[in-house]
Amino acid sequence: MTNMTATPRKRGRPAKAAGDFRETREILCRAGVAALTEKGFSATGLDEILKSVGVPKGSFYHFFASKEAFGSELITLYARYFVRKIDRFLLDESLTPLQRIEAFCEDAERGMQRFDFHRGCLVGNLGQEMGALPESFRAQLTDVLLDWQARFERCLEQAKAVGEIAQDADSARLAAFFWIGWEGAVLRAKLERTGEPLRVFAQLFLMSLRS
Amino acid sequence: MTNMTATPRKRGRPAKAAGDFRETREILCRAGVAALTEKGFSATGLDEILKSVGVPKGSFYHFFASKEAFGSELITLYARYFVRKIDRFLLDESLTPLQRIEAFCEDAERGMQRFDFHRGCLVGNLGQEMGALPESFRAQLTDVLLDWQARFERCLEQAKAVGEIAQDADSARLAAFFWIGWEGAVLRAKLERTGEPLRVFAQLFLMSLRS
Repeated sequence: MTNMTATPRKRGRPAKAAGDFRETREILCRAGVAALTEKGFSATGLDEILKSVGVPKGSFYHFFASKEAFGSELITLYARYFVRKIDRFLLDESLTPLQRIEAFCEDAERGMQRFDFHRGCLVGNLGQEMGALPESFRAQLTDVLLDWQARFERCLEQAKAVGEIAQDADSARLAAFFWIGWEGAVLRAKLERTGEPLRVFAQLFLMSLRS
Repeated sequence: MTNMTATPRKRGRPAKAAGDFRETREILCRAGVAALTEKGFSATGLDEILKSVGVPKGSFYHFFASKEAFGSELITLYARYFVRKIDRFLLDESLTPLQRIEAFCEDAERGMQRFDFHRGCLVGNLGQEMGALPESFRAQLTDVLLDWQARFERCLEQAKAVGEIAQDADSARLAAFFWIGWEGAVLRAKLERTGEPLRVFAQLFLMSLRS
């Protein structure tokens, strides 16, 4: 689910000296997203991120008021990136609606494989950690999931329109079911370091729709 | 999913002074399980647990070599507790096999409700956090989930025997599907502080089996 790679600091060209503040901000955010998809918020130290990209603490506070503000920005960025990914598959008219969901799931497995199943979903990680996170993250994370769900619901409505799923299927509920279970599948894939849980979940979900 | 309450230190009777080491160990473990179901491992400080139950650090190291050893023991204890809960429902012969699974899910919702959806599943929390945890936890957590799955598989086999689900249903795969998705449902219930995700997942899972 995570293709946003942390860009290592370019050799011989310290980000700060370049005077390009937008670039520094971007480097910070990429490193932050990578850390949050891998370890979550609580286990990620700000110092460790700053050190990994060679940005001094003073610079960080030029961009973000706090670790909380930084985290909130990372949720926004990840959500924006992920919506593009969802749309790339779910709006692909060369496939039937259910094939689009299938393609999305297969791509997610390739995405996790690329990082050897070390990285999961930033939203799932932070959702799991909510008990230890700033309360402001709760609504933000929920809204992201509801947005992803709405896109799946529209795709399932199209599946209904072309007769791929039953006419009386509750698309909204099925889309909720998918995202509830899919975050569990990503969690399990990360735990077991294999794509099998993603495949089990996707296959049985799609099979139950097709039957 | 979590009914192991943290026992507050008894008034006017410091755990240590009682000289009852077994009791102190138990108090520590209860507080540890409560913290891990709520906040996970990374966000839980040892000092905070010790302070909450009034146990000095020296005492802690009498029982556990490290925070890692403590965490491993908490996984074992939680798994043992949870297996009893699963068996209470899944071996209840007054219900049909699918009704047992339904009853398990309903009880889980009541369990989460009791703590106002602040606590989730210790195994799900730590599974999500694996990127930041001692590597030794990985196999331990996976084995716990496989054990829970095996119990569900046996129940689904019984559902097949009494004709509640299709004869060609793959009980092992369905049990895996349940636990993959269920951990996602617990995560989401904790995030949204409502039992709705548990109900959505359980209802659609059971409906797909019955159709």
